[in-house]
Parts: sequence; structure tokens; C-alpha cells
Amino acid sequence: MNISVQGRSRPYRTVTFDSAANSVLLIEQRLLPHQFEIVAMPDYRATARAIQQMVVRGAGAIGATAAYGLAQGALAFRGTSLEKFAASLEKIYQTLKSARPTAVDPVNAMDAVRRAMDAGTTVAEKQALALAAAEEFANDDVRHCAAIGVHGEKLIRSGARILTHCNAGWLAFVDIGSATAPLYAAQKAGRKFHVFCDETRPRCQGATLTAWELAEQKIPHQVISDNAAGHLMQRGEIDLVIVGSDRTLGRTGEVANKIGTYTKAVLAHRHRIPFYVAIPLSTIDWNLRRGADIPIEERDPSEVLGAWGSVSGVAGASYVRVANPSSGARNPGFDVTPAELITGIITPAGIFPPGELWKNRKRLGHKS
Amino acid sequence: MNISVQGRSRPYRTVTFDSAANSVLLIEQRLLPHQFEIVAMPDYRATARAIQQMVVRGAGAIGATAAYGLAQGALAFRGTSLEKFAASLEKIYQTLKSARPTAVDPVNAMDAVRRAMDAGTTVAEKQALALAAAEEFANDDVRHCAAIGVHGEKLIRSGARILTHCNAGWLAFVDIGSATAPLYAAQKAGRKFHVFCDETRPRCQGATLTAWELAEQKIPHQVISDNAAGHLMQRGEIDLVIVGSDRTLGRTGEVANKIGTYTKAVLAHRHRIPFYVAIPLSTIDWNLRRGADIPIEERDPSEVLGAWGSVSGVAGASYVRVANPSSGARNPGFDVTPAELITGIITPAGIFPPGELWKNRKRLGHKS
Repeated sequence: MNISVQGRSRPYRTVTFDSAANSVLLIEQRLLPHQFEIVAMPDYRATARAIQQMVVRGAGAIGATAAYGLAQGALAFRGTSLEKFAASLEKIYQTLKSARPTAVDPVNAMDAVRRAMDAGTTVAEKQALALAAAEEFANDDVRHCAAIGVHGEKLIRSGARILTHCNAGWLAFVDIGSATAPLYAAQKAGRKFHVFCDETRPRCQGATLTAWELAEQKIPHQVISDNAAGHLMQRGEIDLVIVGSDRTLGRTGEVANKIGTYTKAVLAHRHRIPFYVAIPLSTIDWNLRRGADIPIEERDPSEVLGAWGSVSGVAGASYVRVANPSSGARNPGFDVTPAELITGIITPAGIFPPGELWKNRKRLGHKS
Repeated sequence: MNISVQGRSRPYRTVTFDSAANSVLLIEQRLLPHQFEIVAMPDYRATARAIQQMVVRGAGAIGATAAYGLAQGALAFRGTSLEKFAASLEKIYQTLKSARPTAVDPVNAMDAVRRAMDAGTTVAEKQALALAAAEEFANDDVRHCAAIGVHGEKLIRSGARILTHCNAGWLAFVDIGSATAPLYAAQKAGRKFHVFCDETRPRCQGATLTAWELAEQKIPHQVISDNAAGHLMQRGEIDLVIVGSDRTLGRTGEVANKIGTYTKAVLAHRHRIPFYVAIPLSTIDWNLRRGADIPIEERDPSEVLGAWGSVSGVAGASYVRVANPSSGARNPGFDVTPAELITGIITPAGIFPPGELWKNRKRLGHKS
């Protein structure tokens, strides 16, 4: 998206690749909205750490980062032994996969890269194919998000008040975003609407990233505490909910997304407010049969026990300890929303009831 | 409650009165858990500001503070004119009442003080009666909370995992607390259980005050983000919810409490988890006929846009800006939970279904 950095408006992607330096370039999202900085990951281990520590986060963005990371690791291999190359690749794959266990995009992205490499017969060929496939994944992600916008913008009437949770914006993808794609498309179509951004504790991606994105794009919005949406729904102040997903089960329509999404779906259901999930095809998991089997990442308690923010006079974001010093925390990073609470899944191929993904699996990119 | 300050365990009340200095003494709750300090409010305006700025917060605590504040203002009156005294009192009453408009405890507490003053025939008599009535309100609050514990502790079986929201602990009352009373009583009865404290954004009273209280009393607990309870309920990790209330409608059983309470009630209802509200009698509003008519305080957006915490090397709590600098916020402070979502109201007179408060109004202290 076009953003204004030091007074100049320029287009940026969240994730790109520097072939000359064999480096993955990322927007350092932990500094946003206080500072805008591009950081270079010089090897696949640094790339995996960037995913784990949330320099980059969001379904499509970590998918593209993992794809580039796998290509980066492959390109760093020295030698011609296909056997050693395969062993090296397996290690890189596992390292990148384990960085965020709940998400399926990294796995789908890296599987696509590996499939593409099968066509090569030498290490050098496979290396070249890996990078091409990673670029292809990133470009597909952008096309998917654009298509989500085409289908999703029809849901947004003028005057609508829309709730979103966490950041499923362009920062969570390579560009455009999933949950934000309908917003950006509706804005282009000239419609006026208002967005409520759940702050999304503990990492506050709504208050920091989504609010920053919407401010950059001049879309009217307000941040609310995660506690406030129920009250606003009760008072008739929310018309529509759109969120993203880190893994959507193609067989059941269950949706894993940022912790708190399930709560918003339960509230929307009670108030008969349409609840949509916007996803590119890479977010669909066609294998798992039960949402309860999705691994839920338990993150560091310090995230819940404190917050990151700017202190006047100090550059960037500082960590402050909010909670009682002698208390601990639970910190599940995601939750699973059952299909019954979801009005529709907005995909690049159209909007589907969650229970009908499997029936439409051919159109939704299921491989077999 | 007994708490440990500088290595010594001593009993404290949240609110007391210093007759010699005509000052209201408060625990400065905005410094907790990082610092324990008692502050003196030298006149009724300072006392009202302390309520408004949340030096003291919580249903019973601001009730007692308002009662003492009214007595304090009355005692500061110089002269013998009953007419001027009455006019002065009315001004003090309105100032204290408007400090936190959603709560009913200050109104009930001050009405009790005014009724008690009717028996006096001179300014001096009325002044003495005012202070005695304020002391009586504070002592009643403690007795009520103890009685809530007697009735409520039966709900807590050994091994229970209990969710609470915000702080309805002893810091929110004069002593013991409402939602915490059953916990403290069950602990005395030798039962072991675990408490999840919703952090309760934006002011984080759960992460700071409730967690501090429970740590001081050695009750096992963990802080969770407000987003996490839905997931824990879904996975069967919460057995019981107990919250407090800032205003409970005696006619309908509707409960106004800290923003986010309604959301927890909706989730508990979906998962068939008992949801209880613990209140002293002063929290009941016998007049209002509809929850929708309860005024909901819209607080300063800065609360949502930032957080207070301890920065290493800096004493007390510092404010950090979390959200995107150019974004605004909505910040409703309370919400209203309908009776249908509430299993029972734990009162000093026993546990009642929310719909049966009116029927039992005589036992619940209704005056007419």
C-alpha cells in the first residue's frame, strides 16, 4: 500500500526479497506505529526468529516470509550433493514451520516451494526454482487479497459501522490484507463507513497496526478495548464484523484466529450481526478434521503481564510491567471459532458459507 | 485485609476518616501494585476528585468515600444558619454524585447520611450525625461483604477454576470485597481453588488490583487477557464466574458493571457455566426500571490508547502510548448484563435469582 514515510508517499510490501544479499526484507512491525523501519534477515535462522518474535506476523505475511526463508536457506547451500541438499532443506523447513505452530500459511507456502523444486534436477536448478516459487507465493497472496476485496466490498454499505479484530490488514499479508481488503475496495468505490478496531491484547495489533493502516489510508476509525464491543453491539452501534484467520479448516469451516475472535463471534451471533472471515486460499487447511486438533500456541506470559508503548522522550516502543509483579499469566495466542457462528468466508473465489468450503474445494485450490 | 507493607503484616481498610484533620484517607489505588501509599483528601472537592480520577474506585469504596466526603463537607461548614447549611450540603452532594455517574453506591450512601442528619436540629448536631452515618455506612459495607462470603463460599468446591473480572475485591469496598468474599471465605474453610483474573482493559484493575490482592492472600491465580476467557471456557477450563456490580436494578435484576462483564456473561451462558454477581445491599437501585436507562460513563480516550505500568528504573506507574498516535478511541466504562444471563445474585441476605430481587425487597433493605 502507499504509505507516507518522511513526507513521501510510496508503495511498500510487507515482505520482499533481496537476491543480491540473499536476505529477506521485512517491515519491523514491532516498532509500528511509533517508527517505520525495514530490516534485513541475513539467513533463514534470522528469518525464522523474525516470525517467532513477531517482527513479521499475520497469515499471508508469515507465509511469504517462510517461503522466502526456505528459498533463502536453499540458496545458501554450497555443494552439488542432492542428498545433502535435501537434508539441509528438511532442517530449514522444520525450523521455519515451528516458529508459529498455529498458522498454516507457512506450511502451505513452503509445501508449494518444495513442490516447485521437484522439477529441478540439480541443486542449482532447485535453488532457482525455490526462489521463483517463493516470489510466486508472494504475488499470489497479493492477487488473492485483491480478489477478496472485489467480493467483500459488496458487504459494506454506506454508513456501515464495522468491527475488526487484531490486524488482518496489508501488514499481515504481502499487500492489501484480507479483512481490510473489502474496506479498501469500498473506499475506492466511494463509500463512507466507520471502523472499530479492537485493540487486541496482549500484543495490541489492532491499536497499533490496524489503526495505523487505517489512518494512513484515511479511513475513519476508533480504537476500542476488547471489552467494549459487546456493549456497542448491545446498543446497536456495530453492523458488521470482518476478521482474518490463521488457519481455516476446509472440511469443517472452523476458523483459528487471534485470541478473542471466538468471543466476538459469540457476541455477533447473539446480536444477529453478520460475522465474516476473509482469507486467501493459502489459509485453508484441507487435512485437519477437528478444530480442537489445531495446536494453540501458548505464548510468553510477559505479553499479558505488560504492554509496549512509547514513553515520552524515548524512541520506539518500551515495555512496561502492568500486572502485579508476583503474579503469573496464561497466554493462549489463538482460539477456534465454530462454523455455526460464521456468516460467510470471503475468499478470492467468492463468499462461501463455512460449511460449504469442502463442497467447493476444487474452486478453492484443493490439490487432489 | 491483612497486607504486608515493608515486611510487616497489618490490617488495612480501603477508606477511613481522620476526624482530627477532617480528611478522608484513601489507599492510592493508581499506584498499586507498584507502590502502597495512603493519601489524605483535605476537603470534599479533593475527595470528589479522588473518586473521579480513580484514586479510589469500586462500588462500596466510592460509596463510603462519598459518605465520608459528604460528612467532611458538612463538618467544614462554619455558621449556624440551617438554610445556608442545607444549600452547602446540596452542592457537596451534587459534586460527589457526579464524580462517577454509573455507580449507585455513592447516591445510596449519601442518601443514608442525609436521612440520618434529619434527626439533628442544629448545624452542630447534623454535623455529628453525618459523620456517625458515614462511619455506619462503612461498617455496614464490611458486614455486608462478610455476609456475602458466608453465602457465596458454598459455590466454590475444591479444585474449582473461577473467573473474575475487574476488581470487586476488598480494594473496591471498605474491606473483604464482594466478588472476592466467597474466595476468602472458601480459603478460610480450607478449600483449594484457582482464580483467573481478567486483566480488564483499559484500566487493568484485574491485572493490578485483583492479582495483587490474591497474591497478598496467597490464593493461586493467573492473569489472562480479556480475550482469553472465551477460549478457556471452550476448552472446559473455567467452572464458575463471580463478578461485582456498580448498580444492580432491583426491579429487573439487570447488572451494570465494568465494561466487558456483559461479554463474559454471554460466554458463560453459551458454555452453561454459572455466572454470579456479588453485591452489598447499597449497590441495588430500586428506582430505575430499565437497564438501558443506566447512564454509561464515557471515559477519556487516553485510557484505551495507552497503559500504565512500571518502567525499570522509574518509581510508580508510567503512562505509555500504545495505539497509533493519530487514532482516537471510544471508551465506555461500563456495560449492562441482562438478568437472563445471570445465575444468581449473591447478597448479604442470601443468593437470589436476579428476577426475584423485587419479590424479596424487604429482606434486601428496600426502604418503603
